[in-house]
Amino acid sequence: MEPRQAYEEILQLMHTATDLNAAAALLSWDQETYMPPLAADARAEQIATIASITHSILVGEKAQRLAEYFREHLSSADGELSETEKRIARVFTREVQRATKLPEEFVRRKARITSLAQQAWKDARARSDFALFRDYLAQIVDLMVEEASLRGFSEHPYDALLDVYEPGLTSSVLDPIFEKLERATRSMLDYVRTASTIPEDAFLRGYFPRQAQLDVAYRIVAALGFDFKAGRVDLSAHPFCTSFSIRDVRLTTRIDESDIRPCLFGLIHEAGHGLYEQGIDVALERTFARDGASMGIHESQSLFWENIIARSEEFWHWALPILQEHFPSQFGSISPRQFYAAINRVQPSLIRIEADEVTYNLHIIVRYRIEKALIGGELVVDSVPAVWNAMSTDLLGIEVPDDARGCLQDIHWSFGGFGYFPSYTLGKLYAAMFRTALLNAMPQAPEYVQQGRFAPIREWLQEVIHRWGRTVEPAELVKHVTGRSLSEEDFVEYAWQKIRRVYGDS
Amino acid sequence: MEPRQAYEEILQLMHTATDLNAAAALLSWDQETYMPPLAADARAEQIATIASITHSILVGEKAQRLAEYFREHLSSADGELSETEKRIARVFTREVQRATKLPEEFVRRKARITSLAQQAWKDARARSDFALFRDYLAQIVDLMVEEASLRGFSEHPYDALLDVYEPGLTSSVLDPIFEKLERATRSMLDYVRTASTIPEDAFLRGYFPRQAQLDVAYRIVAALGFDFKAGRVDLSAHPFCTSFSIRDVRLTTRIDESDIRPCLFGLIHEAGHGLYEQGIDVALERTFARDGASMGIHESQSLFWENIIARSEEFWHWALPILQEHFPSQFGSISPRQFYAAINRVQPSLIRIEADEVTYNLHIIVRYRIEKALIGGELVVDSVPAVWNAMSTDLLGIEVPDDARGCLQDIHWSFGGFGYFPSYTLGKLYAAMFRTALLNAMPQAPEYVQQGRFAPIREWLQEVIHRWGRTVEPAELVKHVTGRSLSEEDFVEYAWQKIRRVYGDS
Repeated sequence: MEPRQAYEEILQLMHTATDLNAAAALLSWDQETYMPPLAADARAEQIATIASITHSILVGEKAQRLAEYFREHLSSADGELSETEKRIARVFTREVQRATKLPEEFVRRKARITSLAQQAWKDARARSDFALFRDYLAQIVDLMVEEASLRGFSEHPYDALLDVYEPGLTSSVLDPIFEKLERATRSMLDYVRTASTIPEDAFLRGYFPRQAQLDVAYRIVAALGFDFKAGRVDLSAHPFCTSFSIRDVRLTTRIDESDIRPCLFGLIHEAGHGLYEQGIDVALERTFARDGASMGIHESQSLFWENIIARSEEFWHWALPILQEHFPSQFGSISPRQFYAAINRVQPSLIRIEADEVTYNLHIIVRYRIEKALIGGELVVDSVPAVWNAMSTDLLGIEVPDDARGCLQDIHWSFGGFGYFPSYTLGKLYAAMFRTALLNAMPQAPEYVQQGRFAPIREWLQEVIHRWGRTVEPAELVKHVTGRSLSEEDFVEYAWQKIRRVYGDS
Repeated sequence: MEPRQAYEEILQLMHTATDLNAAAALLSWDQETYMPPLAADARAEQIATIASITHSILVGEKAQRLAEYFREHLSSADGELSETEKRIARVFTREVQRATKLPEEFVRRKARITSLAQQAWKDARARSDFALFRDYLAQIVDLMVEEASLRGFSEHPYDALLDVYEPGLTSSVLDPIFEKLERATRSMLDYVRTASTIPEDAFLRGYFPRQAQLDVAYRIVAALGFDFKAGRVDLSAHPFCTSFSIRDVRLTTRIDESDIRPCLFGLIHEAGHGLYEQGIDVALERTFARDGASMGIHESQSLFWENIIARSEEFWHWALPILQEHFPSQFGSISPRQFYAAINRVQPSLIRIEADEVTYNLHIIVRYRIEKALIGGELVVDSVPAVWNAMSTDLLGIEVPDDARGCLQDIHWSFGGFGYFPSYTLGKLYAAMFRTALLNAMPQAPEYVQQGRFAPIREWLQEVIHRWGRTVEPAELVKHVTGRSLSEEDFVEYAWQKIRRVYGDS
């Protein structure tokens, strides 16, 4: 077989699989946005059927043969395949390998248990009763240990799970970074606790009619560059971004009429994901490389726009007049500086998804350490609530009053998402590193933001990050953009700057 | 192989195929309702991929083997399979046979030509220039002749195409019915033309704000019994009904703020389709029998609710107060009788989709006769515009000013939908026959309508028609419900009653 012919064959396979994935993604999108309630059972079957067909393509004889061919011949395909084509072939090979590691029987067993576990978790959280979830969590930890062993690892079993979301990252790299991040965050919290000024943020709450909130949010994400001809926005209980092709990117947001933040910052966050998806090179369409480099890199893009840009003081010089136009009585007398300070208030709190930029990472560190200890066999399921509460009190300085606001607050464990949580903090660290790189490459970027000129920044992100899609591994990408390896330093420096600006006397 | 085992195997195949069909239907629904414009190309690929996978399942070795098994062993499966299961197996067998008749190469060629033809048709209609469509129409007629020969027929090649939409129906049955229908319609038109009264209908036009129209339409279809927990309504340029499961039925409507009719009657029409889909026995879920008995039977259900019920005088005794509540100045002084007369005005017009209940069938007769003559080789494509215009003038009594309002007005030929048009009139004839059966079974039905009590009528329809889904052939179903075979008589009697009531002096 010639490389060209083999490449055409993997393209065909990927076209079929990605078209099926797009259909499954639409079935899921519809489920969260428009699907009538009684349709749930049939919908679950439809999604499962499509996932199973896609899986059978990946583990099928043809895909295996082609993946093996490229594992052996990729390096010798120079001149016959372009650099992009070789990278796409590598992504294909990796995806086939991944799919092959988990036997059908395991995938089904995991799907069944996690499906029941999600229901049990809902009940347990609603009643704040860990006992209702305990047995499922124990089964899921066993599943995860089994999965780690099926996937394989060199040092710690948790690394196999981390690799699913952040290819190549290991806990031996992550542990010292999280330790340094923890120390820096403790210092910041000490600084904030003893600061003489506390930003006023009461004006962020009030009555903000639904449609006006959407109008503002649409205007702002359109200005950031989200292309509404190649995407759209709908409402869902939990905001998310999904895409069915490079030119079909769906964002959702939610509205709280008593608080201006969830809809606006939620949509900017999802638009950050959306700009990544819309910015992928069209040459990667209908291949496995039409995707983000990793969960953490994807999150860095949403957080770049949500935090680095839209929680900067410069941004509100441009954006506040828009808010004032739609909500004159609420914001008419607020200055950009006041608004900036209000949205950057730092305050330890119980719920991860409501946490500020600084304390958020502490929530992740708690989860990460508990996950790793569970998978490593150093912690038993029964001890999770007590350990959670002790760690939370130690790190955040607040008591956990019940498990609903403690170890039961997040859905991730119930669907078997061990290894997922670190992505959120990785996104923050990457975003801060990309900020440094942007300021080096484009020192005038803050002025652009102040003028509402987002195109140069978006184009820079597209050039260095978005267009590559999944053809690059996260570590390679970060090295290429920043010249350095993953580190907490830029985030810590960025966060200190902000805290001093908000809480200092300057 | 035992019947039970074979049945379980066809169930598995049907589950996979119907889940894929549901995904393809959602991709199409989304395309018409929410999809951003730039997504069109990728979407077309996604739909084509899924259609091709479904097709490959049906023509695959396993499906062939199972279909053959049931062709041979179905009659001997008594006692091992229930009556419903045997009927489902028969639908499976028929579907596999159908899929096998058209070779992959033909399906692709047809898809390619009709895709180009649809674009050409749009241009041709926009410029009212038949020449721009002529070559494509010629190719499509050739394709249709080829398809008829691939599908097979006993008498006329057109019968093979008719059978796609109305299994078992032939032109030898249809021709005399259409001739009698034509004669009766001519008489009705003569009566209307010489009537002394012309119903006033100016009050149907005005300014009807979008949301108020939707509120009225939702209220009314909810009262008819459309279950919004198992379905929903969205907007699209061309109203349609689709479903992804028995409990996920999607209707669309469109809004003309200057005319009360398109949104309201459009949604009642689609809700008629939707009630059929929601009324199918859940035992047929995820099988090929979860569908209407035929296109004509499906249309009979939409027309039953749109015309027989919602264009009856009794209906407006109940429904007019709702309209008056939402549009007091427009309808405050209108009586149910006046409203009834206005929406039943008979007036020959050029555009099929705008035609009234009576003249509508003449549009279908024109198309049917031209289609049959083209397929039978008695008419050449170049003569279509002239023949169209002559037949229209003869039947409708009006001159066709241009091809855009003549033979280019409908999309069907461009997608290869020869054999489709008769379904519309079949729906009218079936609906009138079902009306007769309903009045026999439930003489008080008109009183129920006047009281807004639609449940007994809907339940009767579900009992005799809906629940059977596609386990019955249309002729069998009609015979079972009405005791008779397809006939134009009931429609003609029903239409005469209405015309006399609207145009007579009574």
